[in-house]
Amino acid sequence: MQKEDDSESGGRPPPVELSALGEDGLIRRIRKAVGPDRERLIRGVGDDAAVAATAEKSLFTTDLMIEGVHFLLERTPPRLLGRKALAVNLSDIAAMAGTPKFALLSLGAPPGFSAAAMDQILAGFLERAEETGVALVGGDVCRAERLLISVCVIGEVEPPGPVYRSGAAADDLLFVTGELGDAGLGLKRLLDLAPPVTEELIAGDPLAGPLRRHLDPDPRLGEGRRLAGKATAMMDLSDGLLADLPRLLLESKVPGAEIELERVPLSAQFQKHFQVKDRLAGEALQTALGGGEDYELLFTAPAGLESELLTLGAQGVSIARIGRLSGEPGLRLLDRDGAAVDCPAPAFEHFAVPGRNRGAGS
Amino acid sequence: MQKEDDSESGGRPPPVELSALGEDGLIRRIRKAVGPDRERLIRGVGDDAAVAATAEKSLFTTDLMIEGVHFLLERTPPRLLGRKALAVNLSDIAAMAGTPKFALLSLGAPPGFSAAAMDQILAGFLERAEETGVALVGGDVCRAERLLISVCVIGEVEPPGPVYRSGAAADDLLFVTGELGDAGLGLKRLLDLAPPVTEELIAGDPLAGPLRRHLDPDPRLGEGRRLAGKATAMMDLSDGLLADLPRLLLESKVPGAEIELERVPLSAQFQKHFQVKDRLAGEALQTALGGGEDYELLFTAPAGLESELLTLGAQGVSIARIGRLSGEPGLRLLDRDGAAVDCPAPAFEHFAVPGRNRGAGS
Repeated sequence: MQKEDDSESGGRPPPVELSALGEDGLIRRIRKAVGPDRERLIRGVGDDAAVAATAEKSLFTTDLMIEGVHFLLERTPPRLLGRKALAVNLSDIAAMAGTPKFALLSLGAPPGFSAAAMDQILAGFLERAEETGVALVGGDVCRAERLLISVCVIGEVEPPGPVYRSGAAADDLLFVTGELGDAGLGLKRLLDLAPPVTEELIAGDPLAGPLRRHLDPDPRLGEGRRLAGKATAMMDLSDGLLADLPRLLLESKVPGAEIELERVPLSAQFQKHFQVKDRLAGEALQTALGGGEDYELLFTAPAGLESELLTLGAQGVSIARIGRLSGEPGLRLLDRDGAAVDCPAPAFEHFAVPGRNRGAGS
Repeated sequence: MQKEDDSESGGRPPPVELSALGEDGLIRRIRKAVGPDRERLIRGVGDDAAVAATAEKSLFTTDLMIEGVHFLLERTPPRLLGRKALAVNLSDIAAMAGTPKFALLSLGAPPGFSAAAMDQILAGFLERAEETGVALVGGDVCRAERLLISVCVIGEVEPPGPVYRSGAAADDLLFVTGELGDAGLGLKRLLDLAPPVTEELIAGDPLAGPLRRHLDPDPRLGEGRRLAGKATAMMDLSDGLLADLPRLLLESKVPGAEIELERVPLSAQFQKHFQVKDRLAGEALQTALGGGEDYELLFTAPAGLESELLTLGAQGVSIARIGRLSGEPGLRLLDRDGAAVDCPAPAFEHFAVPGRNRGAGS
């Protein structure tokens, strides 16, 4: 016989594993957590497909997160993992100047995975969904060797959106929202902490801000929409400026860009941690421009709009001009006096083989 | 120096791995394979999100396929794997009486995975997309320990659709499209073949039909749409009738159903292989009703529509009445003379732990 409350004995019930819930049990649990259907959702979780009333112009995006590749289970509080799995998709919708509406959530996990941790992942996902007006409408659950989360988000966009990556002109200025590098610094800090990393541990850490930027990024949805009609090209920074900016340039068929290092916006904690004085250099430079996962918006706009954009930034998340596009090929990092600074190594590459040197001739 | 053509030396170039393509290289390859944008697709692969003109009522569905769980790499020709990854999602759209329009494809693979095999997976996916009027509009690629494919399909539905799982009444009749059990028989056969299993090997096998039903299922899109306005509840058979029918009953709040075993439609190859004479029994029974992955449609309709539905079936994929719903709780399998037959064991459960007996008391 199992007691409902075993506080008297001081013991804890053994953790429930997914194998005890079963596939249908997990789906029922998700369905219960989702709650009643939202406006414009005609049929949500539980049928072969979800049915929803859609706007004239829809946005579709998807992102995969895999344990050991995108996150380390022992160092990621499950609630924040759920929040992030949705947020990285919302960031893509923000980068199109759109509004997210519906999400599909697929979960793969080993049979021994804790049902309580899965509940926390789901709770975090639904919290973030609630904050952003998104309805979870379906998904899939299955066995996997390692935890994996695949999310698909459907959004909508109204004129003057969407903003593509492809609209930049060679004489446009280059802007970012927020501050760069905190997510990279947070990741470095996370790897130094002794697992398990809990939310309490994070809250008490001297680098709590950067840790939270890495573990629980804020999609710039409002900023994205306000930039529609002003930004000529826009994308979100997921792999770091040095990896992402070339993608925007390629799509816009603009040969190059200059980044003024002293203009790159940095948080007070970042500056203090790296003892940044005059300008970015060394590890600070690599973290700010190559660290990845900032999920800020990178965008271009004509020079004539600069003051209007900076005013827009003063109303919420800051906006900073960090450089300009250029007809000269390649990325150039410029010092305060306009001297070129060496570019740090390229960012994370998913299919890199450890030990194989890309640049080696043999 | 590398030769463009090494046919003179008789050697083959070493197989290209994903690590040589890189993440952006694989995305470029996908983008090139996808070709020009389709009608109503405003922006496809390559931006933060895809943009499309959507119908008033949209359908969303997603399915995960993981190596070692859903397929065995050495026994699955990669082109067929690509076809199936899309088809299982299309089957969900068919089960809602909808029309698929857009797909997102996420791929996880080890750095050493063959670029040629990935091309074949993509080619198969795009072939199936072409056949069904679906545009690949985006996705994600990343490193994973094992190959995984996550697909999301967006469709549309017009009145008298959609058909839900929840509309059945206790006195409705029960129908299926096509034949049951071939996919299960194909899987058994596949596990007996010596890897690597190629398309040539399959074509020459005495059980080529069942093998193909397992490896390359046909989504019943036309049938699904033609059943709108007639079927009261509908779903696709992915886990086998014995696992799926209780889900339909649960959604429809109907307590039970009777299946007349002699009415279960079986292919000639299935009947020959299992030497089915009068009625389903033993392994044949378990394969036909519990095998899974048939991707046929299971649906209910009032008795008055039976002759019309059977006529509908005579025009293409067959339709068979296999039983009726019932106010009496549970599933009953009936012999020709109306005698009850024991139900075989339940179908595949994703979170089952090998060696742990569900029914055991201790």
